[in-house]
Amino acid sequence: MAGGVVDVVVIGAGFAGLTAARELAKRGNSFVVLEARDRVGGRVYSKQIGTHTFDLGGQWIGPTQNHLAALAKELGVQTFPQYHAGSKLLSWGGKIQRYNGELPRLPILSMIDLLRMQRSFNKLVSQIPPESPWKMPKADKLDSMTLESWKEQFLWSSGSKLFVDIITRAVLTSEPRDVSFLFFLSYLKWGHGLDTLISIPKGAQQDRFIGGVQQIPEKLAKMLEPHVILGAPVRTITQSTEGVTVVSERGTWKAERVIVAIPPVLSGQIHYDPPLSAARDALCSRMPMGSVIKYVATYERAFWRDAGFSGEAFSDTGPTVTTFDDTSHDGGAPALVSFSDGAAARQWSPASPAERQRAVLSEFARFFGPKALHPTHFEEKDWNTDPWSKGCYVGVMTPGTMTSFGHALREPCGRIHWSGTETATEWMGYIDGAIQSGLRAAAEVADRLSSGRGT
Amino acid sequence: MAGGVVDVVVIGAGFAGLTAARELAKRGNSFVVLEARDRVGGRVYSKQIGTHTFDLGGQWIGPTQNHLAALAKELGVQTFPQYHAGSKLLSWGGKIQRYNGELPRLPILSMIDLLRMQRSFNKLVSQIPPESPWKMPKADKLDSMTLESWKEQFLWSSGSKLFVDIITRAVLTSEPRDVSFLFFLSYLKWGHGLDTLISIPKGAQQDRFIGGVQQIPEKLAKMLEPHVILGAPVRTITQSTEGVTVVSERGTWKAERVIVAIPPVLSGQIHYDPPLSAARDALCSRMPMGSVIKYVATYERAFWRDAGFSGEAFSDTGPTVTTFDDTSHDGGAPALVSFSDGAAARQWSPASPAERQRAVLSEFARFFGPKALHPTHFEEKDWNTDPWSKGCYVGVMTPGTMTSFGHALREPCGRIHWSGTETATEWMGYIDGAIQSGLRAAAEVADRLSSGRGT
Repeated sequence: MAGGVVDVVVIGAGFAGLTAARELAKRGNSFVVLEARDRVGGRVYSKQIGTHTFDLGGQWIGPTQNHLAALAKELGVQTFPQYHAGSKLLSWGGKIQRYNGELPRLPILSMIDLLRMQRSFNKLVSQIPPESPWKMPKADKLDSMTLESWKEQFLWSSGSKLFVDIITRAVLTSEPRDVSFLFFLSYLKWGHGLDTLISIPKGAQQDRFIGGVQQIPEKLAKMLEPHVILGAPVRTITQSTEGVTVVSERGTWKAERVIVAIPPVLSGQIHYDPPLSAARDALCSRMPMGSVIKYVATYERAFWRDAGFSGEAFSDTGPTVTTFDDTSHDGGAPALVSFSDGAAARQWSPASPAERQRAVLSEFARFFGPKALHPTHFEEKDWNTDPWSKGCYVGVMTPGTMTSFGHALREPCGRIHWSGTETATEWMGYIDGAIQSGLRAAAEVADRLSSGRGT
Repeated sequence: MAGGVVDVVVIGAGFAGLTAARELAKRGNSFVVLEARDRVGGRVYSKQIGTHTFDLGGQWIGPTQNHLAALAKELGVQTFPQYHAGSKLLSWGGKIQRYNGELPRLPILSMIDLLRMQRSFNKLVSQIPPESPWKMPKADKLDSMTLESWKEQFLWSSGSKLFVDIITRAVLTSEPRDVSFLFFLSYLKWGHGLDTLISIPKGAQQDRFIGGVQQIPEKLAKMLEPHVILGAPVRTITQSTEGVTVVSERGTWKAERVIVAIPPVLSGQIHYDPPLSAARDALCSRMPMGSVIKYVATYERAFWRDAGFSGEAFSDTGPTVTTFDDTSHDGGAPALVSFSDGAAARQWSPASPAERQRAVLSEFARFFGPKALHPTHFEEKDWNTDPWSKGCYVGVMTPGTMTSFGHALREPCGRIHWSGTETATEWMGYIDGAIQSGLRAAAEVADRLSSGRGT
């Protein structure tokens, strides 16, 4: 058993926690990072599959994600463009359509409806203050309905409704009925608008990392050695006038401040004495994680490219919602990556890995032909049954949560400060948001440390 | 540190857990009940205030709550009628109306609208299978919207909308925007309809218990001594082919089966190895507790009765939503009981007890005159900051939860069985439902115990 006395205990060794710890280190404060898993990176997880490393968690970076770009550059982790040349596929009600532009061919009425939708989103999103969406005009009304209710009330074409379903699954790994409309709009705000969120070039899926993103948290952790403790889930946080005591499975630490850098639902699993504010506690039980299973299949050849496909395929039925080319930067390991998102993830999580592999490869074959049935490797990661994530990508807000409890997202509870991508005011839900939240939490804490060392 | 080997570990010493344990005892099975608090009773909590005992948690019993009636009778705990003679008060937008019938005077259009609402509820509720509301016709559609969305779409009068707001706060301690419309309808089903849920005579508030309800769990616990361990929060549950290991703060137990008799949100705080099914885990993060603070003020005289008031007062503004006469059975301790429900509880939880007392007594004075300002005693219980409840009365379902994860409410996860009022199929959210769930879980477990002792 380890343990000791530090200025700050950081809980969680994802991008948020490691960033916060590094800032504290820079300022000369002492700290320990307690991580429940046996690895760092959190919702970022790279794995060698055959000859190359692939990402089974977060994997993309796009324009305006400047925190991540700067960190990657500093640590010497390089990016390369996401492949997107060629035709895309849309499977709608089981019928496959091949298309080339940004959108599939939709009936003209659906196109008009989509334009209406876009205008409505743009107008609403422009009114959102990113640090407090609950203060936007009519926030109460927008937070009182699900995205599904808005969709059914506002849209009248099946094409535009399909579009909302697919983007909600792809971006929030949730169904439109699961989330508050105000939260959805806020997510668009934080992610620089719908186009940016769903695009490859000029969007959030523009580039990938050579060798996988997890290199970054691994390099950070190395810089912070020996102060990152793995396999150390935190059980209780006790505050007093003198300080705070954090009890983990790997020992007990005393500190002046704590940074909790894990998703709200996981922070709700810790026992707090005295209890958290009612608002913070309520928030923890009202931001469930989305549902996602991620698959990577590697092949001898990128046969879909040979046939003129980009590898992008979107479907409203079957096990996978979105599929992309996932070939390594050097072309040495042709690959596809695919996601069961939202309802599909919930449906397929209870199946066996073998059943899922069969279903996903059949789907690839339906998209790109029978060669898809014969990968060299197939890997998956079911984030829903990972006890230290409880789903991915991100905690989403149910109706009423933003307006009643949104203010508790970043409000410290005594000596406890909140970090993690869910607390970001830009790129919430993304790696970039996690880094932003780590910087913010470290600054918050540094301002309050009595030692003043390094500040 | 205690610990040992038993047939069954029961987690939670509320009505559900104690009932389950008692059934196991009757069958000759060995067990231990692990309770996090330093008392039994869970969301039932009686306290001596002045000369008499009052309930700061659940307190009423009504017709068809046969499990509770039988248990109370067996244990010799007697009931007496909730006082309701006299005029009631409705404060609507700050303006007080005195009335005598079941409903306040509302504009005729509001009355017609309420009748429409009642018919609509009755029709929908009649189609709900109580064990699986997610299978009712159009369940998907009904679960995709909040009660607020339904209210705004279906109702057109301010009187009927006010009615929905007040009953949602009073019955679910939530705002209409917080809950799925399908869940709300299911709650009506489980509670024998809206009239039963909100009524005093012939309803869920018909009778009270002489000396407080907590006597019942206390008597049960006494019968189960020394197998009820207090101050023993459970941290981890590990399952293997041989059995299950439960690690608590008061020791480690090995058993064949576990009954988890706590609300879903609290069961989500335990660490499970192997992890729960994705569906069960998702359910735990999608059934937040309602928000409530309960107040009891005792007086020298029941001055409101003298003035012809029943003590019932309902308000859409201010700190309290519902108020009732709470005088002791013998008249020896005149009292009022009142609730901050939903948004009011959230607003008033951060205030100090003194601020709340001032606000609540001012409200009583506004209803019943200045004598209300001078109680002999004033007690409160903020359930929102109680770490072993995280709110009250009950876990509510957000949109999408019932149809996606409702099936996981009672589905065992290996050797783990689920109990607690949230798993009841009649009087879910009430003490009666807790008892039903304890009986059901005990029967489920008994069927599966290899020992077969006593079965």
